[in-house]
Amino acid sequence: MSERRTLIWGWGYEDQQPTPEQKKAIAKGLAASLGRSDLELAPEPKVEELELRAPRVTPPTSLAAICSMSTYDRAAHTYGKAFPDMLRAFRRQFPNPPDVVAFPRTENDVVAVLDWCGQINAIAIPFGGGSSVAGGVEAPAEGAQRSIVSIDLRYLNKVVEIDKTSRAARIQAGVYGPALEDQLRPHGYTLRHYPQSFEVSSLGGWIATRSGGHFATLYTHIDEFVESLRVVTPRGILESRRLPGSGAGPSPDRMFIGSEGILGIITEAWMRLQDRPVYRASAGVRFERFADGVAATRALSQSGLYPTNCRLLDPMEVKRNKVGDSTGTMLMLGFESADHPLESWINRALECCKDFGGATPNGVVIRGSGETAGREGSVGDWRDAFIRMPYNMGTTVAMSAIFDTVESSITWERFDAFYAGVMESTQKTLDEICGGGVLSCRFTHVYPDGPAPYFTFLGAGKRGGEMEQWQALKAAACDAVIRLGGTITHHHAVGRIHKPWYDRQRPELFAAALRAAKVALDPQGMLNPGVLIDP
Amino acid sequence: MSERRTLIWGWGYEDQQPTPEQKKAIAKGLAASLGRSDLELAPEPKVEELELRAPRVTPPTSLAAICSMSTYDRAAHTYGKAFPDMLRAFRRQFPNPPDVVAFPRTENDVVAVLDWCGQINAIAIPFGGGSSVAGGVEAPAEGAQRSIVSIDLRYLNKVVEIDKTSRAARIQAGVYGPALEDQLRPHGYTLRHYPQSFEVSSLGGWIATRSGGHFATLYTHIDEFVESLRVVTPRGILESRRLPGSGAGPSPDRMFIGSEGILGIITEAWMRLQDRPVYRASAGVRFERFADGVAATRALSQSGLYPTNCRLLDPMEVKRNKVGDSTGTMLMLGFESADHPLESWINRALECCKDFGGATPNGVVIRGSGETAGREGSVGDWRDAFIRMPYNMGTTVAMSAIFDTVESSITWERFDAFYAGVMESTQKTLDEICGGGVLSCRFTHVYPDGPAPYFTFLGAGKRGGEMEQWQALKAAACDAVIRLGGTITHHHAVGRIHKPWYDRQRPELFAAALRAAKVALDPQGMLNPGVLIDP
Repeated sequence: MSERRTLIWGWGYEDQQPTPEQKKAIAKGLAASLGRSDLELAPEPKVEELELRAPRVTPPTSLAAICSMSTYDRAAHTYGKAFPDMLRAFRRQFPNPPDVVAFPRTENDVVAVLDWCGQINAIAIPFGGGSSVAGGVEAPAEGAQRSIVSIDLRYLNKVVEIDKTSRAARIQAGVYGPALEDQLRPHGYTLRHYPQSFEVSSLGGWIATRSGGHFATLYTHIDEFVESLRVVTPRGILESRRLPGSGAGPSPDRMFIGSEGILGIITEAWMRLQDRPVYRASAGVRFERFADGVAATRALSQSGLYPTNCRLLDPMEVKRNKVGDSTGTMLMLGFESADHPLESWINRALECCKDFGGATPNGVVIRGSGETAGREGSVGDWRDAFIRMPYNMGTTVAMSAIFDTVESSITWERFDAFYAGVMESTQKTLDEICGGGVLSCRFTHVYPDGPAPYFTFLGAGKRGGEMEQWQALKAAACDAVIRLGGTITHHHAVGRIHKPWYDRQRPELFAAALRAAKVALDPQGMLNPGVLIDP
Repeated sequence: MSERRTLIWGWGYEDQQPTPEQKKAIAKGLAASLGRSDLELAPEPKVEELELRAPRVTPPTSLAAICSMSTYDRAAHTYGKAFPDMLRAFRRQFPNPPDVVAFPRTENDVVAVLDWCGQINAIAIPFGGGSSVAGGVEAPAEGAQRSIVSIDLRYLNKVVEIDKTSRAARIQAGVYGPALEDQLRPHGYTLRHYPQSFEVSSLGGWIATRSGGHFATLYTHIDEFVESLRVVTPRGILESRRLPGSGAGPSPDRMFIGSEGILGIITEAWMRLQDRPVYRASAGVRFERFADGVAATRALSQSGLYPTNCRLLDPMEVKRNKVGDSTGTMLMLGFESADHPLESWINRALECCKDFGGATPNGVVIRGSGETAGREGSVGDWRDAFIRMPYNMGTTVAMSAIFDTVESSITWERFDAFYAGVMESTQKTLDEICGGGVLSCRFTHVYPDGPAPYFTFLGAGKRGGEMEQWQALKAAACDAVIRLGGTITHHHAVGRIHKPWYDRQRPELFAAALRAAKVALDPQGMLNPGVLIDP
């Protein structure tokens, strides 16, 4: 049923994987980063090798045409793309696959599949691109008792209607990033939402997980672009009004945004669009010390200039990704507009940076008629590394390296202690568990009251012990994040993986309210039980 | 208990009411607007004339010191400031006053009062400044059976803590606008939230009702300034983390923002602050035709310039408020910044306006060292009228005129039909019921996908029949708003008055979820029953 196949144990499409030579080069680079020469690539799994539990249920005739029980489809819907997911897939461990994968073509199909799940008391797992790095599309262990149906929305992939006056479009929730942009481009519009998973993630998935996107300030999350939603729940269909703004009670949309599939299946959304940028201005700003880069970024975040790109890389992030001359701290700064030239904006922003010693070794790039900017110099270096990154992950797993990104947000006044604490705790564990490793931090988004720091760790694993090593590293970083006042996720969602820390973060009475809301919409507890809150 | 007394049957403090001469002048102006010379001012009520139902309950000794059963306090907490509230107060009609008004001094007091309400199964009504124009602080009719306790938060009025690095402050929820700004000013900060009710409304009230404020674009509602909340519910206290951004599940804050007192009592919030503006640029832009002003405002809203002030007045609004030469359509345009001069911003904005024939008869005002702008010329005319407006309301009631503002938001592509439909329906009813009257429209806030139009109507009433006349007019406007796709409120909240239309607007399944959440937090249904949703 899946027309173009994605790789089960790594990122992206099967037909776009690195060549064997590229894999060797990736492995060599990784080994050099880790200062190890003894790491070898283990043989990659093949789908034909997998032996899955026999499906415990058969879809009714009326649904047979849109359901698959193939080994590939079931394996491809067992996990997301978190490190432990890739590791288990690489190890050919699929103890709890969905029994059936449904591929609805219409909203009516979604309703019919959910009805059937209700009749057989199955677990229903909404599935977008399957790029969750938080365990958001995996069945609970209790799945051993209840049948599991994964509902893959990929064929709900159309831009249905464009309202040019209001600059908004009605879009089916299963559409992946590239197909969405392909349908908007001829009309001169773009959603401009580019999470790192853009290629294989869907609009509905972005909304259900509060995905962070392109804009480093102001419209940081998909939340801000949602004008209205259509959601299929076990109790029926719900649709909110298209409203530019409203003060009528708590926002219905905000209850489903971030609900991670536990309240309903998002089938359609009216989304606010952007005109395609005409003017661009960008610069890579180099600071000698990380603290100076942080101070400049704080000044920028509070300036009211609202840069589109405002990503700060700490010295290790600069070095790992070979940005600029690979030294110092770099701020990737950029403005874009479809309406006006941006000299006043970037000039003032660079003044802010200069107050803290920020220099622009590659100068400033100004574009005025729709040409892209930010593809050369240090900004381009970073962009290239960022896009390439996920495709390296499979190779990293194959050589038993341990890696992950723990992301958060924290107010500015607590940032220094937060950074020191998360780095220290994670580095200590890297030293103990992996005999050292690489640890770095970048800001992906910034707010007037604080940044969103992302910590990436990489260490050499012991073949066979990678899961425990990853767990120890993840726990070290996440414990520090929660202890020091951050959020367990800025935009990767909670899922199953972050839930133990989310339990400590969110007020217990809010969980009680959310649980009650879930029972009201999903009385059988079919939808993604165990994700976000206890069922 | 109330130190400085507000007027029970009109707006503002007793010591700031218009003089008898001013009232006559207001009445004369109104009579001229309505083309009537037969309207007379009825005698104003006095508190001493009121005879309230005897309190049906007595607070326990432990709470006696913070509770009042005085006639003034009970009458002053019976209604908000909607037209029917002022009318009933003017008529000395107080059939269902609270039995007790509690004035907690601390959060512990709030808990103790709620506990007591639980013990006696009373209705508990959170009360901020009492400026609700939606029936949000009034007891339900069932109050005849259950005792009613109004909980006035005015003594929780301190800015507790300022975090200068993150530009945020921890603020008690009962503080009124002026006292809040007075406490921030010495530190160089401001919340910059100025609803028309600013003088007698509270931070907690703004949050509970999703109040719209100063910024015409971008940060239109108080929602955006809330960093975290502390809420007392009947089940206990809930506090969210201070987070600049988060993707961890549906936002807990967003569940309480707009909850209108049915889920808990907000006692404290961390709020994002602004630096006090240094640079200002403003202009009154005149368009010959309303449609041109609308088109220019749409272009501005989609330009990414984000003006601070962007309020469009239709020709009747211009005429009524004597803005500029009282003809044409006027756009009140303004930018402000603590960081940078604004020439590039306003110049580009004025180019957008020029594309649609916008002219600046009074020129452009540019200020660069903290002086105010926008207090002269047509922008100043409008500002003066806006601030004066609420103080005229008592006099309007006294002369039996009928008035109200119905506000909404709607996408741009539906705006023309929406404007025509609401105007036609309301004017028709004005003609039928009041023999004509004045009807006008302004945008208070604009979004890339649509404006927030506010419709104000004024007609001559028949002494004794004002309530039915107001109901007919309100219904005509609100029916049109809902039929034509708008929201029943952009920032006045739902309360009891807007509930019939909110019932048609919000998805029924969302109400089911919200109701379930309420039961989880307030199992006895004590808090503001009948506001927002059916109890």
